[in-house]
Formats: sequence, C-alpha cells, structure tokens
Amino acid sequence: MWGDKSVKFSANILDIATRGVLLNRADARSIGVLDGDRVQIINIKNGISTAALVHTTSTIARQGTVGIYRITNERLHLEDGAEVEIREAKRPASLDFIKKKMDGIRLNKEETLTIIKDVVSDDLSAAELTAYITASYINPLDMDEVEHLTRAMVETGEQIKFASRPIVDKHSIGGVPGNKISLLVVPIIAASGLKIPKTSSRAITGAGGTADLMEVLASVEFSAGEVQQMTEKVGGAIVWGGATNIAPADDRIIIQEYPFKIDARGQMLASVMAKKFAVGANLVVIDIPVGLHTKVATMAEGRKLAREFIELGERLGMKVECALTYGDIPVGHSIGPKLEVKEALRVLEGATEPNSFIQKSISLAGIAFEMSGKAARGTGAAMAQEILTKGKALEKFRQIIEIQGGDSTVKSDDIILGEHQYVVKAPASGYVIEMNNRSLITLARTAGAPQDAGAGILLHAKKGKLVKAGEPLFTLYAERNWRLQNAIEEGRRLMPVLVEGMLLDRVPSISEI
Amino acid sequence: MWGDKSVKFSANILDIATRGVLLNRADARSIGVLDGDRVQIINIKNGISTAALVHTTSTIARQGTVGIYRITNERLHLEDGAEVEIREAKRPASLDFIKKKMDGIRLNKEETLTIIKDVVSDDLSAAELTAYITASYINPLDMDEVEHLTRAMVETGEQIKFASRPIVDKHSIGGVPGNKISLLVVPIIAASGLKIPKTSSRAITGAGGTADLMEVLASVEFSAGEVQQMTEKVGGAIVWGGATNIAPADDRIIIQEYPFKIDARGQMLASVMAKKFAVGANLVVIDIPVGLHTKVATMAEGRKLAREFIELGERLGMKVECALTYGDIPVGHSIGPKLEVKEALRVLEGATEPNSFIQKSISLAGIAFEMSGKAARGTGAAMAQEILTKGKALEKFRQIIEIQGGDSTVKSDDIILGEHQYVVKAPASGYVIEMNNRSLITLARTAGAPQDAGAGILLHAKKGKLVKAGEPLFTLYAERNWRLQNAIEEGRRLMPVLVEGMLLDRVPSISEI
Repeated sequence: MWGDKSVKFSANILDIATRGVLLNRADARSIGVLDGDRVQIINIKNGISTAALVHTTSTIARQGTVGIYRITNERLHLEDGAEVEIREAKRPASLDFIKKKMDGIRLNKEETLTIIKDVVSDDLSAAELTAYITASYINPLDMDEVEHLTRAMVETGEQIKFASRPIVDKHSIGGVPGNKISLLVVPIIAASGLKIPKTSSRAITGAGGTADLMEVLASVEFSAGEVQQMTEKVGGAIVWGGATNIAPADDRIIIQEYPFKIDARGQMLASVMAKKFAVGANLVVIDIPVGLHTKVATMAEGRKLAREFIELGERLGMKVECALTYGDIPVGHSIGPKLEVKEALRVLEGATEPNSFIQKSISLAGIAFEMSGKAARGTGAAMAQEILTKGKALEKFRQIIEIQGGDSTVKSDDIILGEHQYVVKAPASGYVIEMNNRSLITLARTAGAPQDAGAGILLHAKKGKLVKAGEPLFTLYAERNWRLQNAIEEGRRLMPVLVEGMLLDRVPSISEI
Repeated sequence: MWGDKSVKFSANILDIATRGVLLNRADARSIGVLDGDRVQIINIKNGISTAALVHTTSTIARQGTVGIYRITNERLHLEDGAEVEIREAKRPASLDFIKKKMDGIRLNKEETLTIIKDVVSDDLSAAELTAYITASYINPLDMDEVEHLTRAMVETGEQIKFASRPIVDKHSIGGVPGNKISLLVVPIIAASGLKIPKTSSRAITGAGGTADLMEVLASVEFSAGEVQQMTEKVGGAIVWGGATNIAPADDRIIIQEYPFKIDARGQMLASVMAKKFAVGANLVVIDIPVGLHTKVATMAEGRKLAREFIELGERLGMKVECALTYGDIPVGHSIGPKLEVKEALRVLEGATEPNSFIQKSISLAGIAFEMSGKAARGTGAAMAQEILTKGKALEKFRQIIEIQGGDSTVKSDDIILGEHQYVVKAPASGYVIEMNNRSLITLARTAGAPQDAGAGILLHAKKGKLVKAGEPLFTLYAERNWRLQNAIEEGRRLMPVLVEGMLLDRVPSISEI
C-alpha cells in the first residue's frame, strides 16, 4: 500500500503517556493506513525502530509531520523535529503462534521467544497480548512451555551474573496483607554473609508491595548493574524490579491480566522464576501463603504449586524450596507502607512482637541458611533468630538503606503515619472470629495506600483474641481527611474484622461497631 | 479514591480519532488515577455518560481541563469548554462473565447481554473484548449461547419493523473474490414484489464488499429508518450496515478478530443472523461457498454450518435456506469495485455471460421465490431468469440507485476503470489448472482495491479453459501507477493463475509469464 515503501516525516513529540503515533488524516489516506493500523517508525539518526498503532487527526499533526506519543518515544529517543521514516509494519509472526495456542497446540521454544520478543518491543498491541494470555489461561502451559516462557522472559531483559555463588533469593506469591517479611528476611540473610539481590514489585491490587515499603526509607529505582554492585558491596538490596529491565515482559503481562484477576499458573511460575534466574540466584525460597482469601486455597493446591516451582527450578539449574505458610489473616499488625515499615523497624530494633511476623521471617531465612549449608537441617531458624536478636540484621538493613541512598540512622519512631485517624471499636465482647484479607486490602486502599504511604490499617486484635465491648479493633490511618471519611464509610460496608455475636444485619453507624 | 466521588473539568475536544480522555498528570494524581485506568465521564448538560481509558500529560491538557478524544466525544456530544464530571468507573460486570467464559462455563442470556451492552457502550477496552472473543473461540458457544448472543446484538442496536411480511434477505459468508451477486439478487427479488432491505459490509480483508461496490453507483450510508422507507418504496435497498447502527456490536467484534484471522463459528452465526433479524427479515437465503481457499473447506462442513444457520433461524422465528455453492474460483471475471459493478450492469443490460455469475444469482433469488411461495419448488430459478432477461431487474436496480441518490441512467459503459493497466499473458499453451482466491484478493488489494474503486483484476481465462501461449490470462487495473507496479511485482511472486506446464521454479520476469 506504500509508494516507494517508506515515507519520511518530521517528528513532533507529544506529551501523552501512551504508545502510538498521530498522523494527519490526509497523509494517512495517501499512504493507505487507517486508524488502528500498525506502522513501523524508524529514527533515521540512530536506526532504532519500533511498531506503533496509528491515530489520525486533521488538526493536531500538520501534513508531513507525525506526532510521537511519549511511551513510544521512550524507545525511539527522537528529538522534536527529527526526521523519521514510516513503513508498513509487517504482521508480527507471533500472531500466528498465538492463534496456534488458541487452537490448543503447544508452542515450542522459538515460538514462545518470538511472542515475548514482540511483547517487549511493543510489536503486539494490548489486545493481541491479551489474546495470548487468555489462550494460555484456557489451554494451560505444560512444564516445557513454562520453561520456554521463563527463558524467553529472561533472555528479553537484562541479566545479572555474579562472580561467585551461592546467590539467594526469596519470593512470596502474595495475597496476604501486611506481608512485610522481606524487610527482615533480606537483612537477616545478608547479615550471614550470603548475597540476596531482591527485586520486588509495587502493589497493583494490594495495599503495598515490598518496593512501596522500601521506598519509604530509600530509593528503589536502580539498574540491574547497580543492583549487582550494591549486592556485592553490602550483601543485599531491596529494589523495584520494574526499574531494572529484568524480565520486562512480565510487567506487560501482569497489566493485561489485571482486569480479569487471572493469574494463570504457567505465567505465574514463569514470572517468579524468570526474575530469580535473571538476577543470578541459585538458591530460592518461595513463600506460598495458603488460605481461603489468598491465591492458594488449600494445602493440596499449595503442595502441587510447590512441586511445580521445584521442577521448574531444576530445569533452570536452581535449587528451590517452598514454605507453605498460614495466609488466612494478615502478617503482623500493620497494613500500608509506613505502618509496615515502622513495624519492621521495631522488630529489627529489638521488639519481640508481633510473633506471626517474626516467626514467618526467621523460618524463611532459616530455610535459606539450611539450603546454603550455613546451618544444619533444623537449625536455620535459630540462626536467623540469633542474627535478629543480636542486632546484626538491623545493622545490615542500615547498610542497605544507606547504599540505596536513604538515611541509615532512621528509627521506627521517625516514621510519621497519616495524621487522619479513626479507631474502630468492638461493638460487643467476644472472640475475633474472622478477618477478611481482601476487605482489609480494599479498606487500606480506600484510605490511600499505597500511593499515600502514611495510609493504612493498624490491627489491635487478631483472629482468636478475646476483646471487650468498646476496646479498639483497628485504627484507620489516612493522609487526607476525605480518604479517611471514604474509608470509614467503606469499613461500615465491608466489616473486615468480625467479633463473635456482632449483628450482621443491623449496623446503623460505624461509631457503634 | 475520589474526594466527593466526582470532579468537574472543562472539556477540550481533541481531534484524535480514537477513544479516551487526556488528564493533566497533577489532576490524575490528585484524584488517584493512573495511565490506563478507566473513568466515567458525564456531559453535565445532557447527562450522557461513557467510560474511557485515561492517558496523562503534563503539557497538553492544563490542570482543570480534560482532553476528550474524538470517538469518545461522538458519544458525549460535548462542545469545547463544556463542563464535564469525571467519576471513578465501576469495574464492568462483564469482566466477571468473560472470566466465566474463560473458565469454560456457559453464559446465560443476561450475562451475554451485559457483555454486548458494555461492548456497544465502550465500557470494555479492546483488550477486554479480545479476551471475550478468544474465550468464545476456544470454548465454543453452544446453540443457546449463540441465540443469546444474536438477541443481544439485535437488542443493543436499532431494529426495523415492517408493517407486512414476508421480508427477504440474503447473505454470503464470504471468502470468494468477485462475489457481486447481491447486485443481481436484490433487484431480481425486489422486482418480483418481495421486499429485501439488504445491509452489507465493506471489505476488511477482501477486495470489495457489496457496500464498496454499491458505493460506485450511489450513496450507501443510511439510517435504519431510511433503509425501511426506501424498501417500502421501491422494494429493496443495498446499503452499508456500518452506517445503520444495526447490530453495532458486530463491527467491534470483527475488528478485534482481524489480527488472528479467526471467525469463531458461534460469533459468525450470531453476526449474520442478528443483522437479518434486526432488519425484520423472516425469509433468509444463505450462500455458503465451499472450497479449499474459502472459509468452508468441505461439503460436510458446509452442511453442518447450514444446519446451524437453520436451527438458529428457527429459534428466532425465521425461515432459513442455505445454498452450498462452488467457491474454489472467483464468481464471474471481475474483482474490485468498479470492475464488478461494470460486469453486473452488463448482465442486467442483457449480457448472457459470465455464466457462473448469472447462474449463482438466479439460483439464490430462485430459492427466495420458492420460500415465499412466489414460485413452486423447482421453478424459482426460471422465474428469476425471466425477471432478469425481461429487463425488470435492471429497471428495479435503477430505482434502487435513484432512491439511494445515484444516477439512475447509468450504463455499464459509463464505469471508468483504473487507467493504469497491465496484461499478464499465458507463458505456455495448456489448460488453466489453478486459480488461488487468496492470492487474487491480495493482488487486487495491492493494486488498490477497494479504496481505489477502479483498481482490481479482470480474468480472461478461468479454471479449465485451454489457452495458447501469449494469450491474456488476466489484466491488472490500478488508479495509481506505483500501485500497478507493486501489483505486477506481487503477481510475479504469487502467480494466482496457473497454466498446465508452467514452470514454478524459474520465472525471471513477469513479462514472460
């Protein structure tokens, strides 16, 4: 459809945070492209090219110019007015492979790699990627395909290669609020002399990912090379994976899964293990919280998932152990970035509570010690406890904070929580019989977490505790009053913490709960 | 995430032909939305609201203003500077139903209707719609679901209700180039006194849909009400369905299917029958071309599809008959809008060739005559032939052209073809042993069809004909020389017409073919 097969335009960078190019309608007509068609754009100066979908306008882009949206230009590095060439985009070969997967045919290594390459280079649209995700969800990946996908995710991003092994890593598959354990596990492990370059995520649906938490104390945006250097130097780092370009396909996939709340088994396995493999880890501890309101409902399911992680690890040359943990209620008492950081710092500073948080952290660190040979079987947790009790973990954490550009003298008391607070009290005396993880997360998000780092929930009573009428059940924290008000209203509706004997059908106002 | 749950902005209409809204980054942050989030926008003046995805900018939209992209504004009807309210968009309920379909669970009537409503109201993104299409392709719709989908497509668009029955309609499921038969079938049927309000499509992957053809002679963009009036007046109309708002969900679905070349059985059935049902048809003839290079490869497949059309028709209270037709080679000799219109006018004017085109047209019209009782079983085709031969079809076609705003005195000789032409000759004497439909379509498109209406292919010899070396096989037509040159090059590569004894592995230049 193209005259001499390519046309030159003058680029006009548009500050719109999306992907795509904007063509004058007359230009679009003359080269024969329609709205939604895909074109190939080439930065003539540096030769970089990328595909993008076309929008048209009669006014915003003059004839002879092309508007380049910001995210597309992050790839092209064009300056305003630079010359670009636009060509007809070839139909990505991955579309045929995605169609194959729709038809229930297994994909081989090459086909999977082609798809993931096209994901990373923006050659697939969001809709096309969704088709791949949907097809892989309905026609689940077998272990060969999961391995291909893992390797493809690794190969299409940056990788860290440490000079010496072992390199430890840990991952929690999520779904449990208040799961701040990396803030203890990483310094405990690093304090033992092992290396742990921990990349973590920001919350998408949660109230705070480990990256959101660490950001309260230090910068979390580093390149893969910087992560390696910091780990070599102080033994560990806690950074946001999204900034590293490690397994970048994974983020794209997760964004498309989000509307359907799917977390296809094969993709989840590949997602976790690709990131561990790419940072060079060879000893990996995986925390699988099991519980009704988490991602894994039963122990049987948890064990099956654990076996899959272990098998995938073997195929990749990594030693994996999994811990099935209690996931029915939050870890510790705090939910939300600053609340969780404060709680973690307290424990590092010597607090012996909350027990659930400390026990889970030292158990996972202990597994790593046993896997690495630092501790004999059955003695890892004790070793972790000792590192914690002796203040070595605090010292290590301060080194990590410092190397990541934070204030290494920070104390738990320095963390300022949201100033707008509301205490929800027990309406009757009785045992706390239920805590709903999902409702707690929703409530913390309504209060502003994780964007408002000081927002969240502090639990005063956990499941099984006997409370008296009028005693506090939990405190809501917010940085903005309107968000606190919304959260109070939402709390009335959700009732995330239930006390035995509470009326469920007649709750006139929150102050009476 | 919203203060008083809604925020007011001043609208700035952006001439960008897509859906969405553009928020200043500071505003987006303060109301807590991110790029790619969905918001609800309300035109305060008229109360119309729609959902749209958010893009952000620091410069193009000032704080307090929101840029509204053109397609989103086609729904909102905002004027520049008008006040709009932006609210947090609720998560569309259809996402849960799409997830159900992913999980292999059948959807009921309500669930399907919810999805299709969300498709039509832009409450689903392209990616989310793709997930539905992919899930319905992998987990095929059963006949109940197809019926639900058909009814949902009808209910979410406009419908025509004629005062009297029968109302006839016809549909070809496509895949065969040069299939201009509606230009004969519609006037033949209308000339008999039966009513046939024919909505048709533009080519997406083909070289010319019926709407592209008719547009050579008259306007094809009418509302559903106008289609009804024209049909009441002259017995028939040939319009572009896309302009009528009849079953509008269908177009959205087809666009998303396009990258994967899927045409899921259930969706195809619903797509065809929804459009027939919505125009009020109760007698429907469906042309199912069978052949290796069409959508239906074997007679067995064709019969199965026919039974499904008939069953769906019964459920909807429509009488359906299907004709399995020979689809291995083009219908008639012409491919491309003006070439096909010229050929159809010639036949209407009295030409007795091409036989394939005339026989197919009178057979299908004859079936309609027999279904309606106008003709006894076995005599419909003869009646159609008589209407054609006596010039009644031409007279009726001229009435249709006139009522659609065209020149009713038009003759076949008035149709001017593309001025750039190239004759491809037989390289050797022998029988024409193969014509490849897909390659012919690709070639016609390369020459410019359907956008350049004068572009296309005229076949001088069809399969089975004995040709001598040097005799013309086909002529390429184009409106622009560079497109002709591209087509010549493409023709050399594709060789869509093969003569017995042609070398396949040594073809130095097109002039020698």
